[in-house]
Amino acid sequence: MSDERRSELRAVFHPRSIAVVGASSDPRKSGAKWVTGLRAAGYAGAIYPVAASGGRIAGLDIYPSLSAVPGDVEYVVASVPARSVLQLLDECVSKRARFVHFFTAGFSETGSSEGEDLERHMLEVAHRGGLRIIGPNCIGNFCPAAGIPLGPVPAGKTGLPGTVSFISQSGGMGAKLVEYGFGRQIRFSKGISVGNCIDLDTSDFLDYFAHDEDTRFIGAYLEGTRRGRRLYESLCRASAAKPTVILKGGRTEAGSAAARSHTGSLASSPPVWSAMLHQAGAIEARNLEELADCLLLLQQLGPIRTRNVGIVGGLADGGGGISVSGSDACNDNGLSVPPLHPRTRERLLDLIGEVGSILRNPVDVSPAQFRGLDVLHEAIRVVASDDGIDLLIIQEDVDIMHSFLGVDETREVNECLVKLPQETTKPVVIVLPVGSTEAHRVAVEEQVLAAGIPVFPTMARAARAVSLVSGRPG
Amino acid sequence: MSDERRSELRAVFHPRSIAVVGASSDPRKSGAKWVTGLRAAGYAGAIYPVAASGGRIAGLDIYPSLSAVPGDVEYVVASVPARSVLQLLDECVSKRARFVHFFTAGFSETGSSEGEDLERHMLEVAHRGGLRIIGPNCIGNFCPAAGIPLGPVPAGKTGLPGTVSFISQSGGMGAKLVEYGFGRQIRFSKGISVGNCIDLDTSDFLDYFAHDEDTRFIGAYLEGTRRGRRLYESLCRASAAKPTVILKGGRTEAGSAAARSHTGSLASSPPVWSAMLHQAGAIEARNLEELADCLLLLQQLGPIRTRNVGIVGGLADGGGGISVSGSDACNDNGLSVPPLHPRTRERLLDLIGEVGSILRNPVDVSPAQFRGLDVLHEAIRVVASDDGIDLLIIQEDVDIMHSFLGVDETREVNECLVKLPQETTKPVVIVLPVGSTEAHRVAVEEQVLAAGIPVFPTMARAARAVSLVSGRPG
Repeated sequence: MSDERRSELRAVFHPRSIAVVGASSDPRKSGAKWVTGLRAAGYAGAIYPVAASGGRIAGLDIYPSLSAVPGDVEYVVASVPARSVLQLLDECVSKRARFVHFFTAGFSETGSSEGEDLERHMLEVAHRGGLRIIGPNCIGNFCPAAGIPLGPVPAGKTGLPGTVSFISQSGGMGAKLVEYGFGRQIRFSKGISVGNCIDLDTSDFLDYFAHDEDTRFIGAYLEGTRRGRRLYESLCRASAAKPTVILKGGRTEAGSAAARSHTGSLASSPPVWSAMLHQAGAIEARNLEELADCLLLLQQLGPIRTRNVGIVGGLADGGGGISVSGSDACNDNGLSVPPLHPRTRERLLDLIGEVGSILRNPVDVSPAQFRGLDVLHEAIRVVASDDGIDLLIIQEDVDIMHSFLGVDETREVNECLVKLPQETTKPVVIVLPVGSTEAHRVAVEEQVLAAGIPVFPTMARAARAVSLVSGRPG
Repeated sequence: MSDERRSELRAVFHPRSIAVVGASSDPRKSGAKWVTGLRAAGYAGAIYPVAASGGRIAGLDIYPSLSAVPGDVEYVVASVPARSVLQLLDECVSKRARFVHFFTAGFSETGSSEGEDLERHMLEVAHRGGLRIIGPNCIGNFCPAAGIPLGPVPAGKTGLPGTVSFISQSGGMGAKLVEYGFGRQIRFSKGISVGNCIDLDTSDFLDYFAHDEDTRFIGAYLEGTRRGRRLYESLCRASAAKPTVILKGGRTEAGSAAARSHTGSLASSPPVWSAMLHQAGAIEARNLEELADCLLLLQQLGPIRTRNVGIVGGLADGGGGISVSGSDACNDNGLSVPPLHPRTRERLLDLIGEVGSILRNPVDVSPAQFRGLDVLHEAIRVVASDDGIDLLIIQEDVDIMHSFLGVDETREVNECLVKLPQETTKPVVIVLPVGSTEAHRVAVEEQVLAAGIPVFPTMARAARAVSLVSGRPG
């Protein structure tokens, strides 16, 4: 990608002005929600609502047409019926807009030849006029640093800017990834919902993110492509530059049929896709949760190469079953749970004592409770110090801890855990299953995430993410 | 199992009196927590705390020895050092107690020959004296209807009595299953943590639950057995009588090594176990979350035979990506997502219109939003009425709905969903992913569960549970 094209796409995420065509003074309409969302998110550029009806929305005048807008328009959000798109494109060209993204659906994804013809005409008009199209059938750009939320969301929540950027062929999947991010402190640099990809497509944005200085990790939800070679090559470039995690929707017969109706994508067979992603050096997620898990792990720990996992369970009650099932989860995912060095075992034995403990790896530290918090804390550090261990997975069951220990001791145990990243050079991962005390668990999760530790809801998901990011899926 | 033995085991869950040996006046000690837990849970029988130290706990006198207890003792909780167990067994025999469960650990699971010898002696003493042992290395009985919580939990939370009973070789896994139950409204009839199983074992309780009138569904966490044929036969009997879901810990090399340290179980190879469970007619879960998922599905819907799933997404924002990934999740798990009948499609087309919708199956109902809640509600009923659909999976993203629709509309949509079990004969399953608005999501989950609908956090887990319970794991 030339420097010129890179700087061109920068304006998708940092446009100086945005017109919302198809706005409305009725705040319940999508067109109005784009405007209120941008205002609420603190977008600093000019916002121009446009609708033939006129009126006001979110404290702004609605202009009767794009040509009536007084200033320059760099980026257009189009929430108009499919029958009006060609006329709008002409107006965009006259206005010298640089980008238009069409929220509008009803094109090639309906399977009709009219839809495909319309897309071809749109592309001709845009190319002639030097205008780039995003979509149609998409929710466009997302950039927390610029105050641009993803989609028509009136509250305009963006979260803090971060290092993860994503591309999604589905607006819904992009929106859900952003919500997972809000809940799990995954912080985004940029995002783009590309929909039917008739002009700017996944490859363009992969190339852009590969070079973007604010992007350290790339995620994408794809359904298919009409330009396979081009996608493969941009994936190779992106993966070589930054860890790139891909979720391919439509891996199965039923999924592929749904993808045809959704974004008009013709999906290849799953083995072909998997082989392509593997050869390109990308990480393949099987569903949105795995995509979010990998991005969180990368954001918190950076790229890792883990083979040997140390597992710690039993922060409150006996951790024997967790040790067993955690070992199963690691082995299922190609991770090793090696025995501890004899010296480590001796140190643990001195600290905790044998009865009721499992001091092999997994380590069930539950009897340390009876010897005090310092012993528990030290036992975890001892396991982390073992030379044979690359990474530590600790299961913390907040509800069990509440039941067996009480609220205060649960808080104290958690205070030990959040110190671990300062106390050991080994990456630490925490499994924090949902349970019966959700308000407390959510508070604990926030503290652990804020300490830079990735958090997963189950041992299976933690092991899977570690394995995927380490390049060794089981 | 003879009627006599069945009525014998009833007293494990409904004992007339419980002595807690190894109690303490220090409420932080485990022995004290058993007593406070039973009091808090409202256990109606006599509770006798026993400890040489004397004193009081939870408003009760602590007796210096079991023989000093004034009344009959039917069930003994033993939280004493391993070196005292033989003496305690003698006292239990003298007192004519019927059951003793040993919280005490440090026996065969340590791998020492002393531990194995001690277990043999314990068994001899008990058999001679007509006493049955539960454990050692376990947390014993659980029975909400009798006011008996699981383990030394001071708050004594039991949840409401229900129809699910379980057996766990791990106290921690049993406790976590109960916490999952509290969080997800899985209601238990009975539970038992069996630990090292030197006397009463998994088979005894499988047989008991198979005949117990209050138990409709059985779950178990196993690590291994020394009596394989016996276990197989009781599993056959249990599965023939009631849906029985088994999680076998130690499926992998690392898990099997951990199981040896945990309950002294010698695990067979995974294929042998899977084949055995399949032949016995049991449902095999791969981890504790799957075990809980299957039990919840069974409790809410009863046994089901589903092959053809209807998927509905897009309650707020575009559900296209959810349609695709939901189809993938169903196909991954051997479930079919068949096309709708042409008549169903016509009815949906009339209701919603084509643009932006996917009306094939999965159905993306998002454009129905623009036509009002009644339309959305009716569209879901129309999908459910299709003759080719056995079961409906609906994805409800509370955070997305809040962002795109707002709080009030989210509540109204949810009110439609909870009416569905009254409006259709087809089983309904709801996927309610965690996200950025957990307090709201938890409230919605409670309403949906209370309406008798099973709720899962991801499409993959919903599809997996439906597939497992239907006897068609992919």
